[in-house]
Amino acid sequence: MSGNTFGTLFRITTWGESHGPAVGVVVDGCPSKISMDESTIQAWLDRRRPGQAATSTSRKESDTAKILSGVFEGKTTGTPIMIMVENQDAKSSAYSSIADVFRPGHGDFTYQAKYGIRDWRGGGRASARETVGRVAAGAVADAVLAKENITVLAHTVALGSVTAQTFDPDCIRQNMFLCADSDAARKMETEVAAVKKQGDSLGGIVEIRVQNVPAGLGEPVFDKLDADLAKALMSIGAVKGVEIGAGFRAAQLKGSQNNDPISPEGFTTNNAGGILAGISSGDEIIVRVAVKPIPSISMEQTTIDTRSNPTRIKIQGRHDICAIPRINVVCEAMVSLVIADHLLRQRATGG
Amino acid sequence: MSGNTFGTLFRITTWGESHGPAVGVVVDGCPSKISMDESTIQAWLDRRRPGQAATSTSRKESDTAKILSGVFEGKTTGTPIMIMVENQDAKSSAYSSIADVFRPGHGDFTYQAKYGIRDWRGGGRASARETVGRVAAGAVADAVLAKENITVLAHTVALGSVTAQTFDPDCIRQNMFLCADSDAARKMETEVAAVKKQGDSLGGIVEIRVQNVPAGLGEPVFDKLDADLAKALMSIGAVKGVEIGAGFRAAQLKGSQNNDPISPEGFTTNNAGGILAGISSGDEIIVRVAVKPIPSISMEQTTIDTRSNPTRIKIQGRHDICAIPRINVVCEAMVSLVIADHLLRQRATGG
Amino acid sequence: MSGNTFGTLFRITTWGESHGPAVGVVVDGCPSKISMDESTIQAWLDRRRPGQAATSTSRKESDTAKILSGVFEGKTTGTPIMIMVENQDAKSSAYSSIADVFRPGHGDFTYQAKYGIRDWRGGGRASARETVGRVAAGAVADAVLAKENITVLAHTVALGSVTAQTFDPDCIRQNMFLCADSDAARKMETEVAAVKKQGDSLGGIVEIRVQNVPAGLGEPVFDKLDADLAKALMSIGAVKGVEIGAGFRAAQLKGSQNNDPISPEGFTTNNAGGILAGISSGDEIIVRVAVKPIPSISMEQTTIDTRSNPTRIKIQGRHDICAIPRINVVCEAMVSLVIADHLLRQRATGG
Amino acid sequence: MSGNTFGTLFRITTWGESHGPAVGVVVDGCPSKISMDESTIQAWLDRRRPGQAATSTSRKESDTAKILSGVFEGKTTGTPIMIMVENQDAKSSAYSSIADVFRPGHGDFTYQAKYGIRDWRGGGRASARETVGRVAAGAVADAVLAKENITVLAHTVALGSVTAQTFDPDCIRQNMFLCADSDAARKMETEVAAVKKQGDSLGGIVEIRVQNVPAGLGEPVFDKLDADLAKALMSIGAVKGVEIGAGFRAAQLKGSQNNDPISPEGFTTNNAGGILAGISSGDEIIVRVAVKPIPSISMEQTTIDTRSNPTRIKIQGRHDICAIPRINVVCEAMVSLVIADHLLRQRATGG
Repeated sequence: MSGNTFGTLFRITTWGESHGPAVGVVVDGCPSKISMDESTIQAWLDRRRPGQAATSTSRKESDTAKILSGVFEGKTTGTPIMIMVENQDAKSSAYSSIADVFRPGHGDFTYQAKYGIRDWRGGGRASARETVGRVAAGAVADAVLAKENITVLAHTVALGSVTAQTFDPDCIRQNMFLCADSDAARKMETEVAAVKKQGDSLGGIVEIRVQNVPAGLGEPVFDKLDADLAKALMSIGAVKGVEIGAGFRAAQLKGSQNNDPISPEGFTTNNAGGILAGISSGDEIIVRVAVKPIPSISMEQTTIDTRSNPTRIKIQGRHDICAIPRINVVCEAMVSLVIADHLLRQRATGG
Repeated sequence: MSGNTFGTLFRITTWGESHGPAVGVVVDGCPSKISMDESTIQAWLDRRRPGQAATSTSRKESDTAKILSGVFEGKTTGTPIMIMVENQDAKSSAYSSIADVFRPGHGDFTYQAKYGIRDWRGGGRASARETVGRVAAGAVADAVLAKENITVLAHTVALGSVTAQTFDPDCIRQNMFLCADSDAARKMETEVAAVKKQGDSLGGIVEIRVQNVPAGLGEPVFDKLDADLAKALMSIGAVKGVEIGAGFRAAQLKGSQNNDPISPEGFTTNNAGGILAGISSGDEIIVRVAVKPIPSISMEQTTIDTRSNPTRIKIQGRHDICAIPRINVVCEAMVSLVIADHLLRQRATGG
Repeated sequence: MSGNTFGTLFRITTWGESHGPAVGVVVDGCPSKISMDESTIQAWLDRRRPGQAATSTSRKESDTAKILSGVFEGKTTGTPIMIMVENQDAKSSAYSSIADVFRPGHGDFTYQAKYGIRDWRGGGRASARETVGRVAAGAVADAVLAKENITVLAHTVALGSVTAQTFDPDCIRQNMFLCADSDAARKMETEVAAVKKQGDSLGGIVEIRVQNVPAGLGEPVFDKLDADLAKALMSIGAVKGVEIGAGFRAAQLKGSQNNDPISPEGFTTNNAGGILAGISSGDEIIVRVAVKPIPSISMEQTTIDTRSNPTRIKIQGRHDICAIPRINVVCEAMVSLVIADHLLRQRATGG
Repeated sequence: MSGNTFGTLFRITTWGESHGPAVGVVVDGCPSKISMDESTIQAWLDRRRPGQAATSTSRKESDTAKILSGVFEGKTTGTPIMIMVENQDAKSSAYSSIADVFRPGHGDFTYQAKYGIRDWRGGGRASARETVGRVAAGAVADAVLAKENITVLAHTVALGSVTAQTFDPDCIRQNMFLCADSDAARKMETEVAAVKKQGDSLGGIVEIRVQNVPAGLGEPVFDKLDADLAKALMSIGAVKGVEIGAGFRAAQLKGSQNNDPISPEGFTTNNAGGILAGISSGDEIIVRVAVKPIPSISMEQTTIDTRSNPTRIKIQGRHDICAIPRINVVCEAMVSLVIADHLLRQRATGG
């Protein structure tokens, strides 16, 4: 209950700072006899690695996953799976100039207020590097879901002022923005280039879709499936909003428009986003998250130092222009963790 | 971990069905020596009671709170506080006609899928009546927050197609929609009347503002203050979206626009909604939720019965047109519970 | 995590004070479709009721169980089961003379130290009356275990200076001490009568045996089955020691004596008490608890008042001479809760 | 809730197998600004290292602690502290001969029953090597307790047939058995030598004493301080019994003998072992554990193989004769963890 653990039965604990020796995760509660090796984890980590897209930092990290426990002869044993990734290319000297200044939009001020001390090197624990543990754990969760044929897929529906107009799932991994609309992807590229030149940054919206979830997952009344998804996704640093199915648009619909009619073949619309009364309906689960623009910008900003004196700051160093598309695999990981957890919970007490 | 408990240190467990003998809550972890009596609870329950607004069901319930433990001579003792509200005017016969039919937009289908059995009387556990326990517990949390001068206030920013254009906090309790814009409140009244005539229902958006929260509340990295608020609010049956500060609008801003500059007097804007890196900044906390339209409508709908045969249904009985404004106090309760919990957590380990 | 909740998946929360309006329990996580009614609960409560044995207080309480939620048409629904027992015959005036005095051996001093306030009427929350909730919940757990043919049986192996020499399970419910040795039971009766005359009290040892537990229950490494049993039993007010299988005697054995040989038909001895490395072996589970003498005695004792002045006290009122045999059903309840919880946990993740 | 996590606010998660690459622990919830470095951890690990006493295995391990997160410039930061110890000198080939045989007294059979797979190398997760993580975490907990002047000390009260007759705390670290009676320590040496020659093993009893615990720690009713101590200690592999204060002896006392009189200066006896109604009284906390003999013996034993065929086994390899004295620091660690956790819990909600 100390904040670094997530999940009830399929449960992870992440650890590590941006510029410490390593980051990682302990996955506890994974069923035994699931095929698992480092290459499975690595494939997921490679998808969050910097340096792949126009939006990403040029920080180079091989991010090599090592499994230190819980796997024996290629299978999970039911004991905790510890996955470690050593930090490399961590130029903490690049941060020494800001050791005494609170960067706007970052956790510098609030970590100091909370703990009275902070590891200022690269944001320390508040760095997006913390998500390495989430993604590694997501790979394990995904292996559990794969046995049930459940798939989790994130795609970019908006980046800056550009919004996807079509949904072609085959497109998603064919452009660097993981957008299901290739035309929109091209416009995103243009917008990113322009903003990069300005030294500014962008936000966007990511949608996550989950297929083949059986009806019945989710625990009334507080651990509703959508409640746990909301927590999981809002716990990602850059996320400022979460909506399920029709989401905020549902607020403008009438009951007769929003209710999904039911036929013997299933629901004929899916405004509910696959979840009714907090329990999966068997329909596709659809969740969207609002991603704020990266707070590290090279434009000059107004702030204070740790002695409360006013000052101005230009963030140096290598930073992403947008958390998208690197955040997409983090969203997939968090959703996979929630579904895997509720899958196990339903096995325990299900009717 | 069985779904009906919420919170870590300030922790509640709710119980009860819509048409069972009673509903209630056990509040565990409330500090001792807090002044408490039934009238404090009652004042909160009265605010969620039906029959007060044009949007509400005409079901009459006195909803009388009884404190059965944890309070001695007008003070909390540190032991569990059990609050019970007996159900009255529960016409379960009104529901017998739908015992074998799954109502669209309700949890009938998913409860059946999950448990293989369901109490069909008035929605059973999935009924909004479950929120009685949340509101009673919220009253206790509020008493804890009051000692720190922390206040939680919900107001209606949108109902159907009407959106508040101004924010005058003094207006909020002067109209039946708890809207901070009295002009908008009048338009809401007109829209509700029209929709009621159609036998349809409406959704809307509620904003919750929390003042005087000290900097430092929230536990990185999964129990971020915004993550816990998102879960708390998304666990309310009708809520389909949650956003913090600029929320989904932040997705369209640039970093230079979204970052809140810092001055010696504090943050000069509040796009962050009072939370940075999951920790309160000392600024006002601002959260908004999307409320879906009430699924119970008297218009005819397409559905199936429990043997998967197609059928059509008109929901009879007394139902709200919109969950707003009754849901507003539920939102206040959930936010109060989260803040109280994190206040205690910070006392335990804070720097 | 506030102390009044026990269990992970099969989880209970108890509430209530000795002389408040009622005591009770919320059982969360019980599988659906288990047959359940008030008479099932009542049968368990009747076994802990005072006034049945020579050792017991003459306080008369009907202790009538009311199920207020979670059961529909004679079956559990998977939602929280709230069971309430109203307090009757609660003569709090009998305690007013001790409102300002700390009784030796009781929690008066420590509750005051912890909370700065205490409900002094009959011990308040620290009263053995708190176990009503445990026993009611134990009846529900037992119904879950019964479906797996698992049985839990407590018997008295020592009371004061008398120790059972034989084990005849048929004897247990044929004497008022629930002793499997009828000769010993007769000696216990004599010893109790003598001590009662002196105004003193007695302790003893209770053994709990569990049959038909499948191999594989218990979660390494902290939630070992024996670790959870130890916590469950030590959380009963009067218990000061817990041992598994050979227990403290194992400390004096050599490895060659203590190890249980394994044959194709199973273990040929059971020094392990049915648990190896924290996991059930399929053999009978055997646990023993040390029960301290009832601290309420009519003999004069040395103590202090709430202003730290020395004083002397004779406890008036109706009190048991020994917690045995009323504590036996409480032990059965706690063991049943642990086994039911681990049964569900193993369903979730088991190999 | 998956078994490898312990504690509520001061919370640890251990990971690692005997013959995997490493073992370790994540400590979450440690307050910030506590002085911490690897030498502090190392001092504790050195005390559990094999090869120090006549009872110990000759397996040589340097057991070097590496802190990988949560400490910055010699202080804890409030973020998770990950401590890793790489495995060395792990001769798994020594175990290949028993890959298909269930060793009596070990978890081989039950792990196989639970998970359907097991890492047979040196007991895998069930190995005493798992306690490395506990001891490393105990060192961190101890640093928190030291700020409150709380001290935790374990000593050996019995080993085989030898029982300490005196208690001289200065003796404890002057003999290899950590016994407070130097005469008894000499007799233990003789007994160990004799049993070693027989190829057999020994058990014993360890007592843990905690000084300067303030009154008020422990959470009624399930998370009583003694209940949590019982779970903590019973979760150690070799422990088969736990008792508080007078413990099992209390079962034979009368109330007038067992009750501790109270004077203005405090309790005049300490049969309660420093805990009343589950809450610390301010008196010394006293707990004892029964340690079973090491199950690995070189004498021939009867067992079965993984195909249920009868067979006989002589355990080869390097093994301790007795878990004492290496287990003593493990007991100190577990007790320190419980006290630190309840210290933080009381800060959160205390009166």
